[in-house]
Amino acid sequence: MGQPVGVFDSGVGGLTVLRELIRVLPGESFVYFGDTARVPYGTKSRETITRYSVEIANYLVVRHEIKMLVVACNTASSLALPALRKIYRIPVVGMIDPSVRRVAALPKRDAIGVIGTSGTIRSGAYEQALRSALPKARIRCQPCPLLVSLAEEGWIERPVTRDVVAEYLAPFRQDPPDALILGCTHYPVLKKTISEFLGGGTVLVDSGEEAARVVDVLISESGMKKEERGGPAIRFLVTDDPGRFAEVGEEFLGARIADVENVIL
Amino acid sequence: MGQPVGVFDSGVGGLTVLRELIRVLPGESFVYFGDTARVPYGTKSRETITRYSVEIANYLVVRHEIKMLVVACNTASSLALPALRKIYRIPVVGMIDPSVRRVAALPKRDAIGVIGTSGTIRSGAYEQALRSALPKARIRCQPCPLLVSLAEEGWIERPVTRDVVAEYLAPFRQDPPDALILGCTHYPVLKKTISEFLGGGTVLVDSGEEAARVVDVLISESGMKKEERGGPAIRFLVTDDPGRFAEVGEEFLGARIADVENVIL
Repeated sequence: MGQPVGVFDSGVGGLTVLRELIRVLPGESFVYFGDTARVPYGTKSRETITRYSVEIANYLVVRHEIKMLVVACNTASSLALPALRKIYRIPVVGMIDPSVRRVAALPKRDAIGVIGTSGTIRSGAYEQALRSALPKARIRCQPCPLLVSLAEEGWIERPVTRDVVAEYLAPFRQDPPDALILGCTHYPVLKKTISEFLGGGTVLVDSGEEAARVVDVLISESGMKKEERGGPAIRFLVTDDPGRFAEVGEEFLGARIADVENVIL
Repeated sequence: MGQPVGVFDSGVGGLTVLRELIRVLPGESFVYFGDTARVPYGTKSRETITRYSVEIANYLVVRHEIKMLVVACNTASSLALPALRKIYRIPVVGMIDPSVRRVAALPKRDAIGVIGTSGTIRSGAYEQALRSALPKARIRCQPCPLLVSLAEEGWIERPVTRDVVAEYLAPFRQDPPDALILGCTHYPVLKKTISEFLGGGTVLVDSGEEAARVVDVLISESGMKKEERGGPAIRFLVTDDPGRFAEVGEEFLGARIADVENVIL
């Protein structure tokens, strides 16, 4: 199937990124790696996340000869991207810069909000990139750790989920931002709830959607693009039980998941 | 400091068990191991949890020469205990049997409830042990995965937490059990909320408290008990960032945590 694009995430969340990648690059081959034995990454340290990310990237480069690495996890993008870019020859695409560029291109971007895991927000990666792109903007970053658990539990439109969203986003409602970056791959499944709470004045920026656009540009411009018929070829690799991944993952991918392989790193 | 008792958990939850151990065995030495780089265990498979548990137990046996292993994690107790007991010479105490014996000794135990992580409930460990001890009892087991995230976020008495408890425990309120086993080390911090929801007719059984009683009996009866003065000697080992462990852990231990060491397995 030629050289695939490697996509890695701590678990199922990155499947929302893969869904966008498949939409913009339907003729491509993908290897998706979910580190389900060590998920989640959002509460863990830079050292640990970098070690895990390098182990996975080594595996994908050596065993699957990927032509590009998409870090489909905002926490790994925030904490491990500099190390990954130093190590590998292939292009490494993260979640942060594509969303920041999208925000910078909006007609109105005086006040910007970012939500993400504790690790993503604590790293300051979004804040630094936004300050450098938009030095005059007012920026507010809010960790929302429980939203990952709610999304994985499948509690998408329950009253409890609306209450948790209201609790985390209360500071944003008093002073609604022009744009809110959904800085975690789990959040797109909660887009409707978030958008209802904030009202229509805020543009929601989906980090996976923006990253997929960037991957499309890089692949097309470098002449690496494949035009296979019959839809994309996808392999799924996980470090824990394949059955559970397929079950929970279908909500995130929006499609059936078959043939998941187990990998022990 | 002589041979310590090894206590291991996926993260901070097992500190509620350590708190009980310190209370009943104040002259003892303990080594607490929190696998914070791979936490949580509650959603992962038997194979993965057994592999992690054996790695940790090997480390504690070889490097710290523990005289007893307390598996202070209900998920690891449910999934890995048979393997651990086959491997090690030292006694291995889990969370399941002590609570089941406590329930069996209650004057009224016709209807029993168990709450725990998905892994604990799916394993059937509590259900099997209860059926064998109380063949005629009505048993209802309910996974409550979000309660771990709420407890770790420190959202102990918020309205959202009461709503989540109400959602999971709704089947119990229609038909309140005589006893409810809190089959996850995180749940004792939510005891008040759970008890208010169920009313006074249900005895809440804290798995860590029951396990600590069993450890006390085993240590005392085997002549391994130490009677040091000046309080217990405790070492804390974690696989991720020591600072964060100390910060979150103090709520669970109910005491200050100093000198946490990082271990890479």
